[in-house]
This record gives sequence, structure tokens and C-alpha cells, in this order.
Amino acid sequence: MEKILAGWESLCASSSTLRFVDINLRSTGQVMFQDNPLTGILFLAAIAWGSYAAGVPHVAIAGVLALVVANLTALWLRVDRTALHAGLFGYNGILVGLALATFLSPNALLWVYVVIGGAVSAIAMLGTANAVKPLGLSSLTFPFVLTTWLLLLATYGFSGLVGTALPTGNVVAAFHSYEASPLKLMDLVQGVLQSISQVFLKASAVAALLLVIGLAVNSPAAAAFAIAGAIVAVLTAHLFGAESELITGGLLGFSPVLTAIALGAVFYQTNWRVAIYALLGTVVTVIAQAALNVALTPFAIPALTAPFVLVTWIFLLPRQCFEPAAAGTDDAVKARATR
Amino acid sequence: MEKILAGWESLCASSSTLRFVDINLRSTGQVMFQDNPLTGILFLAAIAWGSYAAGVPHVAIAGVLALVVANLTALWLRVDRTALHAGLFGYNGILVGLALATFLSPNALLWVYVVIGGAVSAIAMLGTANAVKPLGLSSLTFPFVLTTWLLLLATYGFSGLVGTALPTGNVVAAFHSYEASPLKLMDLVQGVLQSISQVFLKASAVAALLLVIGLAVNSPAAAAFAIAGAIVAVLTAHLFGAESELITGGLLGFSPVLTAIALGAVFYQTNWRVAIYALLGTVVTVIAQAALNVALTPFAIPALTAPFVLVTWIFLLPRQCFEPAAAGTDDAVKARATR
Amino acid sequence: MEKILAGWESLCASSSTLRFVDINLRSTGQVMFQDNPLTGILFLAAIAWGSYAAGVPHVAIAGVLALVVANLTALWLRVDRTALHAGLFGYNGILVGLALATFLSPNALLWVYVVIGGAVSAIAMLGTANAVKPLGLSSLTFPFVLTTWLLLLATYGFSGLVGTALPTGNVVAAFHSYEASPLKLMDLVQGVLQSISQVFLKASAVAALLLVIGLAVNSPAAAAFAIAGAIVAVLTAHLFGAESELITGGLLGFSPVLTAIALGAVFYQTNWRVAIYALLGTVVTVIAQAALNVALTPFAIPALTAPFVLVTWIFLLPRQCFEPAAAGTDDAVKARATR
Repeated sequence: MEKILAGWESLCASSSTLRFVDINLRSTGQVMFQDNPLTGILFLAAIAWGSYAAGVPHVAIAGVLALVVANLTALWLRVDRTALHAGLFGYNGILVGLALATFLSPNALLWVYVVIGGAVSAIAMLGTANAVKPLGLSSLTFPFVLTTWLLLLATYGFSGLVGTALPTGNVVAAFHSYEASPLKLMDLVQGVLQSISQVFLKASAVAALLLVIGLAVNSPAAAAFAIAGAIVAVLTAHLFGAESELITGGLLGFSPVLTAIALGAVFYQTNWRVAIYALLGTVVTVIAQAALNVALTPFAIPALTAPFVLVTWIFLLPRQCFEPAAAGTDDAVKARATR
Repeated sequence: MEKILAGWESLCASSSTLRFVDINLRSTGQVMFQDNPLTGILFLAAIAWGSYAAGVPHVAIAGVLALVVANLTALWLRVDRTALHAGLFGYNGILVGLALATFLSPNALLWVYVVIGGAVSAIAMLGTANAVKPLGLSSLTFPFVLTTWLLLLATYGFSGLVGTALPTGNVVAAFHSYEASPLKLMDLVQGVLQSISQVFLKASAVAALLLVIGLAVNSPAAAAFAIAGAIVAVLTAHLFGAESELITGGLLGFSPVLTAIALGAVFYQTNWRVAIYALLGTVVTVIAQAALNVALTPFAIPALTAPFVLVTWIFLLPRQCFEPAAAGTDDAVKARATR
Repeated sequence: MEKILAGWESLCASSSTLRFVDINLRSTGQVMFQDNPLTGILFLAAIAWGSYAAGVPHVAIAGVLALVVANLTALWLRVDRTALHAGLFGYNGILVGLALATFLSPNALLWVYVVIGGAVSAIAMLGTANAVKPLGLSSLTFPFVLTTWLLLLATYGFSGLVGTALPTGNVVAAFHSYEASPLKLMDLVQGVLQSISQVFLKASAVAALLLVIGLAVNSPAAAAFAIAGAIVAVLTAHLFGAESELITGGLLGFSPVLTAIALGAVFYQTNWRVAIYALLGTVVTVIAQAALNVALTPFAIPALTAPFVLVTWIFLLPRQCFEPAAAGTDDAVKARATR
């Protein structure tokens, strides 16, 4: 595989078109911190399959469109080449496109929205990176969350854009308590898989497997922490008595999966102490997910990956307590420096 | 005009009373980034006319009172002289006074509120400037937004202060979709003018013209970007199908007008690339305005200029991508350094 | 008393168990900025009495448990010794424990929550300190507020954790105006005392007296500003026509009390100019308390000490305007440097 990647890299070096393709593939991989075009292809396959299986192929197209627009915007802004080539200006874009097409009806204005969203995601990425670098932090998916929240909130004031998956009518927050049902093994497995696929807003076991493979080809540790994070998330949510449908659908697990990868296998040098820290961070992300679900009810917008961003930032700020991930051992890690 | 301003400046240098008048005039001009006492007089005329025409002369008085209190507070705090003389400690104050008197019933406690608001706006200005300077940002009207939001929110807990323009009773956010009506030329013109006058919370074509003249005497570019921003805002809002009344009333356009001036004619060196960037920023500010209108519904407070602050900060953070406005060519620009 | 403290200190130096006890006592004192184990004992007595008198002894136990967990977590994180020994990693923990047990029903999961909350409070403390140190700020009780808000919000998504003191069912924000009743002297006294005891979430005059004594043994100025702050808060709230029950119960006064101590006796060198500044800050904190009470209604969570954190940060950012508290005169002040 090393040979294939080396060959591909030399092709990219000689063709600006292939380089741009490479940038977009790496951007896709960067959603889960992987600076690897092969990972990107597998992730794209997961998105394509998940969208096709759910009968919404335009969602995948919107994701790719916003991804391309984001990287073109970054080019126009003349951003740092190393960061651009590592895919750091596109991963928010693809998420913006997927989210907009998932939550809004497909019409002409949706595509205007996707283009605007892709462009703004790149600007917000650079802005966020500038803002949090003095704190030693990375942007994570904050640009995606910010851009998508603004665009989704605004649809309630725009008759040209209509939500499909968004709640409509009065959004009175109804704080009911409910009974949690017992955990079955099949539900656990489904919850774990969909927690992984929901990172790309998909509820699909096949997509989840493609994503895990995509992680494994670049970083076995990342794949392991993704699976472990999903298991921890499902068990934690069940322990606290969260709604079974949310757990099984992976809707309480996708942010914790990202937290587990980030804390366990990307930003800190993996060891037992870090693993315990990542475990606590994963548990807290489940709590933050439930908290943000409640907090956003009056606004009728989804939490997206905000719980991951919030908790991972809190857990990355005390960075003097752990060894940073060794530079040089991993492309993704090097890229992290600028992210 | 240069001669008049030079004569006035020498008068101010010899009289601390005139200097204080000058500071307050410049503060008024700084609401739209103009460090020029003549601009300030024209802006004050716009405020006075707008208040008088709407039958609420006390609103203009509240604005001036809060302005004076803000500058006196800044004096008491012994702030940096250059920034004080450029009017950077008063522009938030006048907006606080105008907003409080616009949204609350006139009674004795309103005036207590106006005094407190003016004083706090100066403290918040210095605090914000200290907080965002490391990021290369200016405070914009964040101190105004923060101070006014706190004061307005608190009135729901204080029986002594009653809202007039604020929604009362249950504020269940009602997310309805509605039909947008076709755009007529007269509505466009009215929407453009009121988008400009609403920067000072006024719905008045006369006030808008005074404001544009006030801009033009100090910076023709700023006047041009204000008008262009208003046109873009009205067209964008119409494209997305926003409510016609909001568009025509200028309520979706005042923040975009400020964004257009800030990005196009104040912080970056004006050229085509910057103009395109400012155009995108203006469009995004319309979206952010609609978004914040929705997000603030549960709290029953107005968005004020928060959309401008949010989007302009996002678009100013990637400052390495554009040439900063040349220092020395413009008083306002020099002042920006400390703002 | 100096001798007793010196003797205790030499005992602590020779026993790691006693040192840990000392850390936890100082942590308790740090809730009101006092780095003194005797203050801590008096504060603990206030908490114990307040919990016992209200028939909820488990609340005091939860506070102490979270306190110990927070300090153990800080030890595990290998934080800076000086800050740890000054109690700076525990004061948020004790507040988290008290708040969780006050607002949630006592069951097995509550204790899981208390342990998680204590641990997260220490991580959030270190993270906040890293984030705000470049701005010259201290963490104040932000880590407590953040941690507790997340944990409380999440309970609406977890059937295993049920609120007792939290509102349930639909939380439609009802913005009614109401009549304020005349102020009676007894109500004033009760409001002042409970404003002080509510810092530890207690409505108890005895607890308030113990707290004031605890302050006075370490810093008479802090005790004076606490009482003055409580009086100012009660009078301000009454002037603006706040609900009498809230005033008398101390629920509008505990944040202003902390602001008064912080601005008047901890961070700035006490003098008349600072006293006036602290007075304004205290008044604004009352307004911020009313504002946040309204703003948090849709989320059905309490404001906790967020008004104190918000206003004190705003008033500490313009630090160039005042002399910082002299280092060396006061242990608490030295500790502030790292806080």
C-alpha cells in the first residue's frame, strides 16, 4: 500500500488536477483526522452507500459539492499550502454539505445554500484556526457546526428553504422523563455501528464498516479508539437511561466516537494514562450530547458535532499534563500542527 | 472643509469643553467607523430627525445622555487618550441609549438604566478591546450588544422597567413558513434606505440620506459600500424569501450595511478581491440576521447588531489573506488600530 | 491564630494525609477567595449546618465527595503544586457536588454524577486557567458553572436522573410583569444574610454568619465587601422592582456578593476608586442575575454563579485602569496569580 500511495503522490506532484483530487480525498479523511487519500476514498464510498441506501443520493452530491467549493475558496484565499494539501480546509465543507442536504428539502435554493456553506466553512476554518492556535487548540469541526447552525436557523426566516428532518411548528421544549428499556446485544451492536456512521450523518452498518476500514488503513489505533468510543458511548447512554431509539440510532454516539479518536489516538501520545483520560472524555461527551440536545430544543436545530468540539477542547486545554503525539510518526499528526 | 476641520481642531486644543464636545461628535461618527466631528453632526441630525419624526424625541436624548456618560466613564477610567479622542469609547454608549429608549417605556428607572448602560458600555469596550486585540480584531459593536442584551433581558425580572417594543406574554417560538411577496422597485428603495437608517434604530429615509452624506464627507468609499451593502442585503433577503415587511423596514439590512463598510472600506485595502469578500460577508450577514432573529425568539430580545459583529469577526480573523487598510491615509483607520 | 496556622502548616509538611486535608480545607475557603484552612473549616461548618437544617444532609456529603474527587483528579493530572496546595483545584468541585445534590434526587446515579462532576471540574479548571491566563483573568467559578450546566441539562435526556428542585414539564418562558412589594427591614436583613449563604446554595442565617466569620479570620476586607455587596444587591433588586421572594431568599444576591469581594478586596488594591468600581460591578451583577434567570428559563437550569463570572470578567479585563492587589500581602492574592 505504501507503494501505491507513493506512486499516487508522484502523479499528484506532476498534475494540478490530480493534486486537487488528492486534496479533496484527504479532506474527506480529515473528518476523522486521517491525512490519507485512500482513507478518503473509503470514506466517500461509505457516504455514497449510506446516501444511496437511504434513498437520498443528492445528499452525497451536496457533500462533495460543498467540499470542492470549500477547497476552491481556500485556494482563492491563498491559504498555507501545507495545510491545504493535508485536506484541512475541506473536511468542514463536506460535513456542511451533508448536513444541509440531510436537514433541508432539495430545491434550487438548497444548492445556493450548499455553495455558500462550503465557501463560508473555509473562511470560518481559517478564522477558527487563527483564534484557537494561541491556546494550543485545533479547530476540530467547530467551523462546520457554526456554519451549519447559522444556515439552518436562518431557514425559519426564509420561505425559500424548508426543513425536512427539522422539527416544525411550535417547538415547546417538552422535558418528560421516560422509561429506558433493557439493552439487547443486537441493539448494542447496531448502536455501536451507527454511532460510527453518524459521524457522516448516516445510519448504516455498511457505511460504518467502510469507515472503520478507512481508519485502519491509515491508523489502526484510530480505528480501535473509534470502536471503543462507540461501545463506551452506547453503554454510558444506557447506564444513564437515555432513550433507546437515540442510542440504537447512533445519535448519542457519533460525537463521543470523535472525542475518543481525538484524545486517544491523535493529539496525545497513546498510553494507559491517556486511554483513561480519553475514556472520561468519551463519557463526558455522551453527557454533553444529551445536554446539547436539550439546550437546542428551543431553536429546533441539531447538535451536530458540537458536543465533541466542546468536550475535546476542554480536555485538550490542559495539554501540559500529557505528552503530545510525536511529530513525524504520522502524517495526520504533522497536519494537526496547523489544524 | 479641511480648513474648517483644522480650525475646529485648534479650538478643541485650547478648550477642554470643546474637546469633550469633539469627542462626543467623533463617537457618534464611529458608529459607522468615521473619526470625523462633521460626520458626527450629520449623524446626530439623522438621529434627531428620526426620533422627532417617529414622535419619540426622548430616544435621541437617551442616546446623547448614554454617549456623554460613556465618555465621562472612560475619562474616569483614565483610558488611552488617542483612543478616547478618536471617539472609540462613546459609539457603543450612544447605541445603548438609543436601544434602551426604543425598547422600554419612558419612566424614571429608564433614565437610571440609560446611565448605567452608558457607563457599562465604556467598561465593556475597554474589556472587549483587551480581549480581542491579541486576535487582531476590533471590538466593533460587541460592547453595545452585550450591555443592551443584559439590560433588556433583566427587565423581564424587574417590574419597574416595562418593554414597549419588546414582545410580552408567552414567547413560544412559532416557526411557520410563509409566502414571500414579489419585490417592487419602491419597496427595494425603501428597504435600502431603511437598512441604512436602522443602524441607528430609525426607520426614516431622511435619516438615511443624512447618514450617507455624513459618511461621504469623510469617506466616499464607506458611503458607497453602505449603499451597496444595503442593496445586496435587500436582494439576498428577497431571494431567500424573507418576510417582506422585515426587508422593507430595513430590519434585515442594518447589520449587513455595517459588515459591507467594515470589510470593504475600513479594515482591508479596498480592491476587487476585497470587494468580492465583502460581498460574501454581506450575504452571510443577512443569513446570520435571520438566524439570530430565530435564535433570540425564546428570549424576546432583538438581535441588535450581533449578526454584524459575528460575521465581521469571522471574516476578519483570516486577515493574512488580505492587505490591511493602509495606515496614515485615513484618521478612522489609525483609530482602528486601538479599537 | 498565626501560631495555630504555623503549627498546622508544619504538621502538613510532615504528613501527606494532613496535607491532603489541608488542600481540601483551603479549596473550600477558595470558593470565596480565601486560601486559609481555618476559613475552610468555618465554611464547611456553614455547609453542614445549612444542609442539616434543611433536612438534606446528603447535600453536604456530595459537596465533600466532589471536592475530594476534584483534588484527587488534579493530583493524577500532576498539576502545579503551588496552585494545588492553595486549593485552586477543589473549589469548583465542592460547588458542583452541592449543586448536583441540591437539584437532583438522591439515587445511585446521582453519586456517579457527583464523582464525574468532581473529576471534570478539575479538568475544566486547568483548561479554563490556560484559556484565560493570556487575558490576565482568573477562572473564577466558570468551571463549576460549565460542568454543572452540562450535567443538569443532560438529566432531561436521562431517565436515570431526576430533578427535584428543577422545573419539570413544559418550560414555556412566561414573561409577566408583576407588582413589587414594599421593603421591610426584616426582609432586608434576611435578604442580606441569605445572599451570603446562597453562595453555597444554602438559605440559612446561621450559615451566613459562619461564612462571614470565616471570611473575617482571613480577610476583614473580604468580609466587609461581602456584607456591603449583599446590601447593595438587595437594595438594587428592590429599586428595580424584582420579585420580593427572590430578593429575600438571597437568590438575586449571591453572585453580586462574589463580585463585590472579587473586585473590592481580591484582585484590585482596595481604595475609594476601586470601591466605586466594585459598587457599579455589584449593581450590574444584579442586573445580569435577572437577565440570566430569564435567559435560562427555556433550558430549565439555574444561573448558578454565571452572573458573577460574566460581570467580574468584564470588570477585570480593563485591568490597566487600576492597581493590582499587592502580591505578598496575602496568600490568597499570591494564589490568584495561577488561578
